Amino acid sequence: MKYQVAIIGGGPAGYTAAELAGKAGLSVVLFEKNSVGGVCLNEGCIPTKTLLYASKLYYSCVNARKYHVSADAVTCDLPKMVARKSKVVRKLVLGIKAKLTAAHVTLVSGEAFIVDKHTVRCGEETYACENLMLCTGSRTVIPPIPGIDKVAYWTHREALDNKEVPQSLIIVGGGVIGMEFASFFCDLGVKVTVIEMMDEILNGIDREIAALLRAGYAKRGVDFRLGAKVTQLKQGDSGVYVCYESSGVEDCVAAERLLLSVGRRPVTEGFGLENLGLETTERGCIKVDGQLRTSVPGVYACGDLNGVSLLAHTAVREAEIAVGAILGKTDTMSYRAIPGVVYTHPEVASVGKTEEALQKEGTTYRAIKFPMTYSGRFVAENEGENGWVKVLADADNKVLGVHLLGNPASELIVLGGMLVEDGGTLDAFRRYVFPHPTVGELFRDL
Amino acid sequence: MKYQVAIIGGGPAGYTAAELAGKAGLSVVLFEKNSVGGVCLNEGCIPTKTLLYASKLYYSCVNARKYHVSADAVTCDLPKMVARKSKVVRKLVLGIKAKLTAAHVTLVSGEAFIVDKHTVRCGEETYACENLMLCTGSRTVIPPIPGIDKVAYWTHREALDNKEVPQSLIIVGGGVIGMEFASFFCDLGVKVTVIEMMDEILNGIDREIAALLRAGYAKRGVDFRLGAKVTQLKQGDSGVYVCYESSGVEDCVAAERLLLSVGRRPVTEGFGLENLGLETTERGCIKVDGQLRTSVPGVYACGDLNGVSLLAHTAVREAEIAVGAILGKTDTMSYRAIPGVVYTHPEVASVGKTEEALQKEGTTYRAIKFPMTYSGRFVAENEGENGWVKVLADADNKVLGVHLLGNPASELIVLGGMLVEDGGTLDAFRRYVFPHPTVGELFRDL
Repeated sequence: MKYQVAIIGGGPAGYTAAELAGKAGLSVVLFEKNSVGGVCLNEGCIPTKTLLYASKLYYSCVNARKYHVSADAVTCDLPKMVARKSKVVRKLVLGIKAKLTAAHVTLVSGEAFIVDKHTVRCGEETYACENLMLCTGSRTVIPPIPGIDKVAYWTHREALDNKEVPQSLIIVGGGVIGMEFASFFCDLGVKVTVIEMMDEILNGIDREIAALLRAGYAKRGVDFRLGAKVTQLKQGDSGVYVCYESSGVEDCVAAERLLLSVGRRPVTEGFGLENLGLETTERGCIKVDGQLRTSVPGVYACGDLNGVSLLAHTAVREAEIAVGAILGKTDTMSYRAIPGVVYTHPEVASVGKTEEALQKEGTTYRAIKFPMTYSGRFVAENEGENGWVKVLADADNKVLGVHLLGNPASELIVLGGMLVEDGGTLDAFRRYVFPHPTVGELFRDL
Repeated sequence: MKYQVAIIGGGPAGYTAAELAGKAGLSVVLFEKNSVGGVCLNEGCIPTKTLLYASKLYYSCVNARKYHVSADAVTCDLPKMVARKSKVVRKLVLGIKAKLTAAHVTLVSGEAFIVDKHTVRCGEETYACENLMLCTGSRTVIPPIPGIDKVAYWTHREALDNKEVPQSLIIVGGGVIGMEFASFFCDLGVKVTVIEMMDEILNGIDREIAALLRAGYAKRGVDFRLGAKVTQLKQGDSGVYVCYESSGVEDCVAAERLLLSVGRRPVTEGFGLENLGLETTERGCIKVDGQLRTSVPGVYACGDLNGVSLLAHTAVREAEIAVGAILGKTDTMSYRAIPGVVYTHPEVASVGKTEEALQKEGTTYRAIKFPMTYSGRFVAENEGENGWVKVLADADNKVLGVHLLGNPASELIVLGGMLVEDGGTLDAFRRYVFPHPTVGELFRDL
């Protein structure tokens, strides 16, 4: 038989596309060499959030005194936390499998190899297809630092399955992944050092918000080394030495464990991509149009693979658009309002343009910034803390970007996204009645 | 001098109106006999949420084992919790005062009395005004139960300032206030009995959701007596006896303390309202139009006083509309999408029509119901629990009502409100990219 859609990679892009295409009545085959759910579900978004919830709870119990609750001898059982994390993942993987089954998707476990745009091989079998969706995702970048082959290090994968709380941890890379792990281990009492090459953590997030988050974690004991380029790694008897150069000065830090989180890169090798002869961008990524179509008709590239955004929720939306394209719809992908969230506590969430981006492109804007303590609920639930709402607007009060520090930023940022996506003005939500007291109310009055 | 706007009552309706009118350049005098912020800030929304956060934290620490965090000897210090609650209130009252000052509002402390629609007396002074806004709010109903004059009881006010954790508590009235206090005291280990006259708690909330919440609290030890009409109250040596009749059978329960939370009623007496000769509705409430204008030109009635909704956020929106009317704007009040939230845990939130309301009015609808465990984040953060999303839609997929059980329902319900307000369809939010993983993502796929 000839499948109407063949999909390589069962992460958020692949499983979303498979389910939607299947539900629309198309015959679909989905190839996944590991576990459906991809990096996001198996070793990314979901396991990190599961562990982070437990570490935040631990932190809350230890610091409950602020709210006049006291708990003695607060302890955590990391092996069991990790086991629960794996259980959560298994449960959600089963959920996705059930959805795929319900959508009549043929799920093939194994490594797919592209013979040509109408032929995919997996093991002994060959599958014919009309449309081919490439959703192979991304992989962790291991930086070529001198000495890296001689030291023991974690990537996020080993960090997620680690069962012993180390005394100390060095995290190379202060991006989203690095900061979430910094938060997790800091909460558990680990001495954490974050080494970041740029002069601020969370590259791409509003600098002011990133600096505020950093200051909060510094107060809680995280040691930040910014503008620091790692020059060498050395294995010692009781841990790892990381040497770096910062403003022309060399320094070294030591810790029991080392986590590398310097970035991710699209997976473009090992599955016969070269047999398609796709056009690439200047940065070497697969070129796609607004419907995720590559330069070869009938071939689509969604998710991290196309290198545009490397976020699960972008992948989901791209998959929807691409399946729509196969079905003859004309929706195109908008990247105007892709939210970014850092699940530290407090959470950081961001959508649209940052000040830095607006300055760079020369757009005139004004920044409206107010504390989250304007919300009664925030005051009730965040003793002694503050959060920030920062909104960037143009001369017509159109919202260009929204940047939040403070809980529950992750659940609120979509409101900012709606404004950015639709070109809404600062008062666009005034006509809606937000429940009182909520933190979300702050969006009525930007 | 003659004020352009005189406002009686400094609760959410009054302070919002005062600030907006002042900011718009109108001369404003605001009369408040107690503390600005009204019931909501001083003895309602804010103090309850502050205490509830502490009791939830206590509960979380006691039950942290689910997440493999253990805490011994968890205790709480109720007097200090109450003191913190008062501190939070004071801070927010100061915030409102600062806003009023910035808006050049003249704040008069004292009981106002209406002489006529252009004249308000307060103490020795008389104030002339062009427009008069009535925002006197509501007061607790004390039901005329036989024996009530011979027993010691709390209203929400005494419950908020109570500093001793009782052994047991009977709550008469299982509405929002009753259930929030049930949650608070249950979390602290108090044996709570809820006596409700109707055959389900939370009248006005979707029955199915209310029943699910009730089942959860019953499991945690709350004793519910439904369809129970209280017939007599008696004081005993160690507490109170509450006798009730249910399905023709009499029964009595005893507890150390008694909380009455059977409802609230607009405050219409004691401030010369009768001197205005306003038209009233069949239910005896002040008649207002879509701009909150009463039958007497230049006189407005906002907030609980007009008896429409008795919610702080409704009052805020009404005040905005009314000030807009004074300023010549044509916006009118919409009550289509007023969210209702119960800050139990899990939270309940509701907006638009319930099934019961749709059935009563004979509207054809379908109910879409799915578990919150469809959200990976919900699974990660709610071990062993479930929540529900229930959406009611018409034949054209227009959303008529949204009903949520599960955290953070309070912060998410506004998304449902937007759909209900705008007549949005089930897939209206599909084009927005919601961050993953969040619970809010569920709104992409109703």
